[in-house]
Amino acid sequence: MSTTLIDLAAVRAAAERIAKAIHRTPLETCAALDQRAGRNLYFKCEHLQKVGAFKFRGACNAVFGLEEEQARSGVATHSSGNHAQALALAARLRRIPAYVVMPSSASPVKRSAVEEYGGQVRLCEPTLEARETTARQVCEETGATFIHPYNDPAIIAGQGTTALELLEQAPQLEAIVAPIGGGGLISGIGAVLRELAPHVRLIGAEPAGADDAARSKAAGELLLQTNPQTICDGLLTSLGSLTWPFVRDTVERVETVTEQEIVLAMRLAWQRAKLLIEPSSAAAVAVALRAFRHQPEIQHVGVVLSGGNVNLDQLPW
Amino acid sequence: MSTTLIDLAAVRAAAERIAKAIHRTPLETCAALDQRAGRNLYFKCEHLQKVGAFKFRGACNAVFGLEEEQARSGVATHSSGNHAQALALAARLRRIPAYVVMPSSASPVKRSAVEEYGGQVRLCEPTLEARETTARQVCEETGATFIHPYNDPAIIAGQGTTALELLEQAPQLEAIVAPIGGGGLISGIGAVLRELAPHVRLIGAEPAGADDAARSKAAGELLLQTNPQTICDGLLTSLGSLTWPFVRDTVERVETVTEQEIVLAMRLAWQRAKLLIEPSSAAAVAVALRAFRHQPEIQHVGVVLSGGNVNLDQLPW
Repeated sequence: MSTTLIDLAAVRAAAERIAKAIHRTPLETCAALDQRAGRNLYFKCEHLQKVGAFKFRGACNAVFGLEEEQARSGVATHSSGNHAQALALAARLRRIPAYVVMPSSASPVKRSAVEEYGGQVRLCEPTLEARETTARQVCEETGATFIHPYNDPAIIAGQGTTALELLEQAPQLEAIVAPIGGGGLISGIGAVLRELAPHVRLIGAEPAGADDAARSKAAGELLLQTNPQTICDGLLTSLGSLTWPFVRDTVERVETVTEQEIVLAMRLAWQRAKLLIEPSSAAAVAVALRAFRHQPEIQHVGVVLSGGNVNLDQLPW
Repeated sequence: MSTTLIDLAAVRAAAERIAKAIHRTPLETCAALDQRAGRNLYFKCEHLQKVGAFKFRGACNAVFGLEEEQARSGVATHSSGNHAQALALAARLRRIPAYVVMPSSASPVKRSAVEEYGGQVRLCEPTLEARETTARQVCEETGATFIHPYNDPAIIAGQGTTALELLEQAPQLEAIVAPIGGGGLISGIGAVLRELAPHVRLIGAEPAGADDAARSKAAGELLLQTNPQTICDGLLTSLGSLTWPFVRDTVERVETVTEQEIVLAMRLAWQRAKLLIEPSSAAAVAVALRAFRHQPEIQHVGVVLSGGNVNLDQLPW
């Protein structure tokens, strides 16, 4: 599979398609974090995106791009995270049903978040197999279109709109750091940079406990993530067949950070920059704080804060 | 004392003076909070201002406006809160000393925050009298200029720049809600609205446990706050001789909210809007959520989020 399906034109089309639905999120800076990093960091605040995560961009692009007849039967996914909420809200905006398959072990908070956005939750056994089977059943019964959280060209093009805004807001960027879970976000960014700003280095951030992208990069082939161990609940998944080629071809390197670094970076972002980010975003902050120590020529670094969905009763410090 | 000293021209001059030093903070919206309020709320994110509070605007205006010779001897204040940090950073930008008198009971975190911005902390007994005496001594010894946290025309004009930005970012506003502590922020906003947008209603927000502005408004005279009881540590102080006339003449009404409402509003802002605000800001959110129930004609409300300096180890829920 090549990466030519998703190009700058696709991302620009996505940007136009979703413009009225999404927030153009602010770019923030923080002197205290700049000082620690030894350079200027520009935080792209996707935690201030609707549903609190960049996922809403891709979900809108996928949902809004469906043909009218296909759309009428709705959309479906299996996810208990930000993609589920994003898909539910995007579907509501188009006034079509969204079916979300969730493991029965998912927290009531996540379930009610999806329902509050109008999503219809279907519970299943907490195994990947049960989730996929149930999702297939739902699609067969309802005619809904399955929207994968990241291994989907429309999703990737939607997430890429983050990079279009970022480059407009900070044309001086020399590098961008983004977290890697399934790889939808960084693939979209890679698709933009490749054509629009090939001089900007793209660095992936991963927890050491869920380092499939780093290992895949090192091996030169797609390796799956088994038994991930990290507080970054948005970064547990493996790359997909569509996102791996982007990571392989458009990402300069993937850096891993420890859980301790992630918690420290999250706390710094909260305390000093007042940015209410989730651990997955903090992984990118942690990488940005140290990734360019030996590249003094890189002075302007964009950091994509992917989301802000945190359990406020269980903060990691 | 009349309010004519501080006018729109003074605020515009302040905006020009501080433009390069401050952040132009973003204006954010949140559908979930809009739904609860029954109208559109526009959050002016001063928690994303430098030092995490609007106080930096006033401090810059006061410090940058000093004559060169006077400035050389530095500035001083007695405060353990956001004004102290703001003054320290503003002074550092002008490369002059800042002396901050703090009670010996102030937390080490607050002390080190001031020192990190280059401020020189002088400890004193934890009484108002000791703070004032020590501050006077410091000014006599060093020749530093005392900068009051709110009862100072340059401070008030600086805080007013918040309103200039807010009106530019959301010209459709029909009302603005701002918290009232010493009254510097709402006075600056009042000075702007009076001349630039007299149709915009200005509503003050106070904790029921520190309701001196509400009581002063009701009595038609300045009443001081004794024994305040609230988690809003930015709203403990009484109005001053310069700010009371603005509250009297430019604020339509002051609404009080309970501690429970404040905590609930703070949690909503964090959870749903991903806005990391301190309790003082949450008081304004709490007021905005219910203040216009009987004014259906008011559909666009600006809410000034005054700051985001929170003890992350002691969240109020």
